[in-house]
Amino acid sequence: MTEKAKPLTDLQIATEAVMQPIGEIAKKAGIPEEAVEPYGRYKAKIDIDKLPVSKKNGKVVLVSATSPTPAGEGKSTVTVGLADALSKLGEKSMIALREPSLGPVMGIKGGAAGGGYAQVLPMEEINLHFNGDIHAITTANNALSAMIDNHLHQGNALNIDPRRITWKRVLDMNDRALRHVTVGLGGPAQGVPREDGFDITVASEIMAVFCLSTSLTDLKERISQIVIGYTYDKEAVTVRDLGVEGALTLLLKEAFKPNLVQTIEGTPALIHGGPFANIAHGCNSLIATNTARQLADIVVTEAGFGSDLGAEKFMDIKARIGGFSPDAIVLVTTIRALKMHGGVAKTDLNAENVQAVKDGIANLDKHIETVRAFGVEPVIALNRFITDSHDELQFVLSHCKEKGVRAALTDVWGQGGEGGIELAKHVLSLLEEPNQFAPLYDVEQPVLEKITTIVQKVYGGKGVILTDKARKDLLAIESNGWDILPICMAKTQYSFSDDPKKLGRPEDFTITIREIIPKLGAGFLVCLTGDIMTMPGLPKKPAALSMDVDDKGNAIGLM
Amino acid sequence: MTEKAKPLTDLQIATEAVMQPIGEIAKKAGIPEEAVEPYGRYKAKIDIDKLPVSKKNGKVVLVSATSPTPAGEGKSTVTVGLADALSKLGEKSMIALREPSLGPVMGIKGGAAGGGYAQVLPMEEINLHFNGDIHAITTANNALSAMIDNHLHQGNALNIDPRRITWKRVLDMNDRALRHVTVGLGGPAQGVPREDGFDITVASEIMAVFCLSTSLTDLKERISQIVIGYTYDKEAVTVRDLGVEGALTLLLKEAFKPNLVQTIEGTPALIHGGPFANIAHGCNSLIATNTARQLADIVVTEAGFGSDLGAEKFMDIKARIGGFSPDAIVLVTTIRALKMHGGVAKTDLNAENVQAVKDGIANLDKHIETVRAFGVEPVIALNRFITDSHDELQFVLSHCKEKGVRAALTDVWGQGGEGGIELAKHVLSLLEEPNQFAPLYDVEQPVLEKITTIVQKVYGGKGVILTDKARKDLLAIESNGWDILPICMAKTQYSFSDDPKKLGRPEDFTITIREIIPKLGAGFLVCLTGDIMTMPGLPKKPAALSMDVDDKGNAIGLM
Repeated sequence: MTEKAKPLTDLQIATEAVMQPIGEIAKKAGIPEEAVEPYGRYKAKIDIDKLPVSKKNGKVVLVSATSPTPAGEGKSTVTVGLADALSKLGEKSMIALREPSLGPVMGIKGGAAGGGYAQVLPMEEINLHFNGDIHAITTANNALSAMIDNHLHQGNALNIDPRRITWKRVLDMNDRALRHVTVGLGGPAQGVPREDGFDITVASEIMAVFCLSTSLTDLKERISQIVIGYTYDKEAVTVRDLGVEGALTLLLKEAFKPNLVQTIEGTPALIHGGPFANIAHGCNSLIATNTARQLADIVVTEAGFGSDLGAEKFMDIKARIGGFSPDAIVLVTTIRALKMHGGVAKTDLNAENVQAVKDGIANLDKHIETVRAFGVEPVIALNRFITDSHDELQFVLSHCKEKGVRAALTDVWGQGGEGGIELAKHVLSLLEEPNQFAPLYDVEQPVLEKITTIVQKVYGGKGVILTDKARKDLLAIESNGWDILPICMAKTQYSFSDDPKKLGRPEDFTITIREIIPKLGAGFLVCLTGDIMTMPGLPKKPAALSMDVDDKGNAIGLM
Repeated sequence: MTEKAKPLTDLQIATEAVMQPIGEIAKKAGIPEEAVEPYGRYKAKIDIDKLPVSKKNGKVVLVSATSPTPAGEGKSTVTVGLADALSKLGEKSMIALREPSLGPVMGIKGGAAGGGYAQVLPMEEINLHFNGDIHAITTANNALSAMIDNHLHQGNALNIDPRRITWKRVLDMNDRALRHVTVGLGGPAQGVPREDGFDITVASEIMAVFCLSTSLTDLKERISQIVIGYTYDKEAVTVRDLGVEGALTLLLKEAFKPNLVQTIEGTPALIHGGPFANIAHGCNSLIATNTARQLADIVVTEAGFGSDLGAEKFMDIKARIGGFSPDAIVLVTTIRALKMHGGVAKTDLNAENVQAVKDGIANLDKHIETVRAFGVEPVIALNRFITDSHDELQFVLSHCKEKGVRAALTDVWGQGGEGGIELAKHVLSLLEEPNQFAPLYDVEQPVLEKITTIVQKVYGGKGVILTDKARKDLLAIESNGWDILPICMAKTQYSFSDDPKKLGRPEDFTITIREIIPKLGAGFLVCLTGDIMTMPGLPKKPAALSMDVDDKGNAIGLM
């Protein structure tokens, strides 16, 4: 990245970029006009029922990363830049990305749709309400909550225990005051009092379900299987018991169509769905990935956090459900991240420190091993920052060469696709090789075995400890017959272990599972390893304080 | 209406209708292509900055009603049918309507965008998320709540008294369990505990502000003036004090563009904004009305509930702020409503009862007087139901003739515009007459005088009683200098009085004001006369239980 050399903000770069009408982008992507539903001039939804039958099965390049710094290593930026580079090389490529959540935009982030000259556009609309998908998910989630509380109020025929309702309300907002609330106060006409809480919308199981469904019919079936809580007899209560899966699916049916936008360089991008990467699987909708594969030869997509979380779930959950094999995995890393893993304090990351890079490289090495554990070969994208020194960069590139792993320096932030050409060439060479992908475990294995496999092969840990609570959860899961599901680990992204302070490549550690939550709609078992924040708060000075709109309707303060 | 003769549901009729591409409708309305932002094939947002400068100042026909039955008298249906009839007569007409709230759609109503052959399309999308405006308002409202609670949590520099925060959160949902909640529970890291509550989004002051703003700049200025609560020293705290008016306006900037759709017969309609008609003013956005007036010769619009509420506020609040004069007022009434005012029980409204119609006609008479109090002449639309008898209908028409008021039988539900031709001709003849409109009171008058004027001239009551609470509110309003604002009465829609059981034309009654709430962003003083429900609940069998979507994505169960 070269922020200092080009001191324009992402919003300024985005505003100056000349977009092509969305119809042109659709044409370039091979989407017939009758399948394009424009939303304004530069966004569209794609009616996939109107796409021509295609035998194409585009290759899937997943962009993941080493264990990140709090600022992130530029995974979305590299995803966009790599696809632009592939387009420059004449490949028919397409991007599949997550939709940004609005809550964090108001808080710290200011915006998230790639960065610099490797952005998706229109940046401002993508970052605000986009085409309304997340609002539709909020609505469906909260309609279900209203139906649950109404059921309690109208006689509770299903015998639901108000103390054991696990379904929470959501808002697409960073709002800590809503984490723990009591609802139904005010007397008999105002509902049944009970404890409740709000998550941020992207943490809703509806979002996870939305992103793993292969069709509207599948979406409805999955929604019907969601467990919302338990009766006084501790029997699970599902959406089907409440009879509202049809209404919830109706609320989601337009949102379920993938959204088409473009990069600054005009590469088509589908941006659709965006579940949390801890309590959910952290990648864009399966329907968008499938649609992109139907249209393009190479689909570049990303998964949240590092390869221990995002890539593992991408392969063990999404690829398994979607029935496809990832063909290449790009591991984004930065000198800054490696220095942090080498023990440098966050405040000192700008100073040259080759030794710290050497000390931190073990983190990269472990991520390489993790990726190879799935039978997939990684390509390292060393994402350049202006503060990186020649020796630091050279060390990493030589190290990769020694390890026999493809690696390229990228500067897509500053140069767009041009800054990702070398990376793209490596990816293309890798795509020539035969695909050896296999998920890490069989879903039929016992739950503890599946978790242990992830801990040992992906994290490099010794084993797993279950708390009493988790043990109890596991027994209930087994007695309900819910154990034949993949695992969704909710773990800190900062370390391979469950302790965010253990940087680099921790060894000899165990992972403590504190709680196992069955998500029967999404179709996975969430294993909580620590306090996982499902409703962020706002900082002392929220980004919103700098936001504005001028008299002509132009956005100010999105970063 | 002829529901029995044509047993199709509104959704079936809507689904069978052939829509014109929205670009064609825009062309018909005189909207240049560069101002049209399509949302799908049949909806668009209008960028009003790109409209040609127009000297046109279309006449405004307001559709109001007599005191309604709980089912409503078909005001939106008549609005649509009248505009279609005017189009048939060669007039360049346009519709301005409120956006339906999604919450009630899930509850009882099933849908609301006119009915039968007098509907706006696409019915299904208008009734669900439409173009996302209400979601944007929900987001802006709740972003403000999050900023308030974050301010408390981060040190409370403004010295806000958490017990005196008047700003509530909202959802577009019927959800009684959210009426009274406590937030900020769970310990010091989870915010400051306090009582709070959720209203339905259309009750948010942001919605009222949105609908009364003349530009984005005006919107921001009004938002900045909203009072969110009081300090420990009882000083008002505004959005400007929190510094987030820019961010909230940014969240609303796309929503603020009016939405263009079409009627079944192809008349252009702007559907934009939809505030409550009790604690707010109950009509679509001023920006949509102004845009329609710029484009068409006749704008047909509606206001919530009967003329005592919707029309009064339309004239004393909206027309005053907008600086225009309503040219005609259509009063929709039905035989069923008049029978109810004549003392017939809800269950017996289908049986012929001419005497009850005679007994109930006093309600219509009073609404005629109310409209004339503003210097505007009404036209009666007797909206036909299949159960109406010849004698019942004849009585009403003869009565109107005796009173010297224009009246027409309408059957726009069953026949579309054709069923409103006579009504349209009456309206056209009225539009030839000079406009004598004047608001009922001067905003400079003392608050009690303004309220008394409304009670006496509009409701036909004797006078006003203030409770101790309301008296205290009034003192605070006067000492803050907020008294020079119009009045927004929050009163039952079922009676001219504040007692919903006093049907017909009650006399010798007083109105008790229990509370006066300053809404400084909207720019009016809300006078509460009873328990006004700002968050509806769901019925025992919510409409959602019958909703579904088939495998091809078609909606089922919207009525």
